[in-house]
Amino acid sequence: MQIIDGTIASPKGFQATGLHAGLKKIKKDLGVIYSEVPANAAAVYTTNQVKAAPIFVTKTALKNQTLQAIVVNSGVANACTGKIGMENAKKMQALAAAHLAVDQENVAIASTGVIGKQLPMSVIETGINELDLQKAEPSAFHEAILTTDTNTKEIVVTEKINGQLVTMAGVAKGSGMIHPNMATMLAFITTDACISAQLLQTLLAQKTETTFNQITVDGDTSTNDMVLVLANGLAKNSVIEENSAAYEKFVAMFQLVSETLAKMIAKDGEGATKLIEAQVTGARDALEARLVAKKIVGSSLVKTAIFGEDPNWGRIICAVGYAGSQTDPEKIDMWIGNQQLLKQSQPQLFNKKIMKETLEKETIIIKVELNIGTESGKAWGCDLTYKYIEVNALYHT
Amino acid sequence: MQIIDGTIASPKGFQATGLHAGLKKIKKDLGVIYSEVPANAAAVYTTNQVKAAPIFVTKTALKNQTLQAIVVNSGVANACTGKIGMENAKKMQALAAAHLAVDQENVAIASTGVIGKQLPMSVIETGINELDLQKAEPSAFHEAILTTDTNTKEIVVTEKINGQLVTMAGVAKGSGMIHPNMATMLAFITTDACISAQLLQTLLAQKTETTFNQITVDGDTSTNDMVLVLANGLAKNSVIEENSAAYEKFVAMFQLVSETLAKMIAKDGEGATKLIEAQVTGARDALEARLVAKKIVGSSLVKTAIFGEDPNWGRIICAVGYAGSQTDPEKIDMWIGNQQLLKQSQPQLFNKKIMKETLEKETIIIKVELNIGTESGKAWGCDLTYKYIEVNALYHT
Repeated sequence: MQIIDGTIASPKGFQATGLHAGLKKIKKDLGVIYSEVPANAAAVYTTNQVKAAPIFVTKTALKNQTLQAIVVNSGVANACTGKIGMENAKKMQALAAAHLAVDQENVAIASTGVIGKQLPMSVIETGINELDLQKAEPSAFHEAILTTDTNTKEIVVTEKINGQLVTMAGVAKGSGMIHPNMATMLAFITTDACISAQLLQTLLAQKTETTFNQITVDGDTSTNDMVLVLANGLAKNSVIEENSAAYEKFVAMFQLVSETLAKMIAKDGEGATKLIEAQVTGARDALEARLVAKKIVGSSLVKTAIFGEDPNWGRIICAVGYAGSQTDPEKIDMWIGNQQLLKQSQPQLFNKKIMKETLEKETIIIKVELNIGTESGKAWGCDLTYKYIEVNALYHT
Repeated sequence: MQIIDGTIASPKGFQATGLHAGLKKIKKDLGVIYSEVPANAAAVYTTNQVKAAPIFVTKTALKNQTLQAIVVNSGVANACTGKIGMENAKKMQALAAAHLAVDQENVAIASTGVIGKQLPMSVIETGINELDLQKAEPSAFHEAILTTDTNTKEIVVTEKINGQLVTMAGVAKGSGMIHPNMATMLAFITTDACISAQLLQTLLAQKTETTFNQITVDGDTSTNDMVLVLANGLAKNSVIEENSAAYEKFVAMFQLVSETLAKMIAKDGEGATKLIEAQVTGARDALEARLVAKKIVGSSLVKTAIFGEDPNWGRIICAVGYAGSQTDPEKIDMWIGNQQLLKQSQPQLFNKKIMKETLEKETIIIKVELNIGTESGKAWGCDLTYKYIEVNALYHT
């Protein structure tokens, strides 16, 4: 497998572009991903009971398990907007279908931004009609989906599968309201691989559990999130079946793309200066390991300690203790970087100079060995900073 | 029922004092509550799997359902301190028993402060021996249990029960690591009422669910928390039985004392400038109502919005949506103060001037009517501020 420079349109037969329609003041706020042929598609959505209108429209579109286009706007979330919001979401889908000359049920839509505001439909309509795939600038799509993100988030990988070069690309946005179970996070993955929609859905559901659902910025699960995967088959590989060497390669690509996007989202959390990775081993099952890892990266006290570059293992073991697993509180080993802080729950002497250097880095790895089993899991978060407060207290509805 | 000025030693037969032993630099750090006669006692403890040594010692002491003294230190939590920590906790109990001339199994101990540090036993020993109940200064106890708290927290109430004047007093400390299920929170309640230990325990367990377990500062559940209640019977009322008018009066006193202390803790959360009270009505059951209320006051995005004095109902409805209840997302009514923001989940026009004045106050009340049942619940939290980051990022282990 190779990581290459590229865009969400790098896999064969995909195009993408974005522009400034006018939902935001200056920045790009409307984008499209398009496949020359209908692609097999899979999706996962927010678990929030309060779901935005585009979630319902896209769910309906996905019933036939194929998609040919995804239209996304930022600036307005179209959440808590009632019947008018639903009508607007359907109209956005219809406008895109007409402009791109594809079946309406093959168009997914997504929105992100302010809750409770109606989409300005004239702006959306003009914007959609200006989307020009002939003069496509795929990286403009990466920009068009951002809200308080400070950078675009993309990764492209290639691999030979069943004799053909297969490309997979992913793009995401995150930043605030980021928590397990699909927070204000949008991620789109395209590939030219030939694989059934059913197998794609199985894989997406599995990998979401260990990647996108293992990140947290602030514990808030948003109303709008989704991950969409499109596989259009134009790589012309013979179809990828489950339990094959080809599927293993495809899974590895998918894992790398998903985990990389997840980490990018965590690292670019609102106000963040550091990525925190918690690695939990020695759990009785993988779910327990992931739960403990997520509690560690979700703890405000751990997050502020990492911001303050303090090896505060007391706050970490406290988070392990309230994670709700049946941890043995006397058996915990713990490391920050390669410096051991606890052995069988007892404080260890460590090299303060090396610890200081470790904590000054941009990625902080916290390892916890529970010593009660053999399973493991990871989670990712970011530090909690003055800037997070600034971003969220000064933001006005 | 009357609220009066007083201290934890106001109920008949109680004494209390505190002093600076030397665990902290300058502030008081050791205190004692003492009852002339053994008192019926009840307790609840942290649910964190990692429990501090004093929790185990106090649990053992409570087996006989009576206590005559509570000794508390701040500065060092005696948590994650292994066998030595357990020995030190038992020694602290023994020293206090000898000094006060009471049975060791009638002495409870509690600690709060830094995790992972051993108690300096010579400092503890000298301190305990200097505790002088002849020259008792009860308010010094209120100070001695504080950590990053900015003020003491106490309330005293009186009521005529079964012909006698009964007094009940409560004192607490909170500030950080405050979350449901007993966070770094210590609360002590004394009363001269005559009531069985069993009924006291039932009442404490019930009321903890709706008061102390409904506050959150930062979502972290500490290793050291406990609430202890002592009833020494010196008011000489005839014993309070369940399902009686006397019990109803006693419950009302207990409810007021517990809820007042809980709110004081939430309001004095680390860095807080405002108390947030969430009132949820129209739930199918009380547990669901409390769950939704707690998610609202626990949301970092709601907390920063309140700090920024912004009526961001989108963040509030988002928290309602991910609370895990089977809320109907189309039926939600919402108010901040007396200004309605949502009706059947649709935004309402409100008076911006009144809203601004409401959000400038020190107590912000968020009301949510779910319209799916008849039960209700409350929770309390505080805003999330620059100061919280400062307190927790600059704190070094």
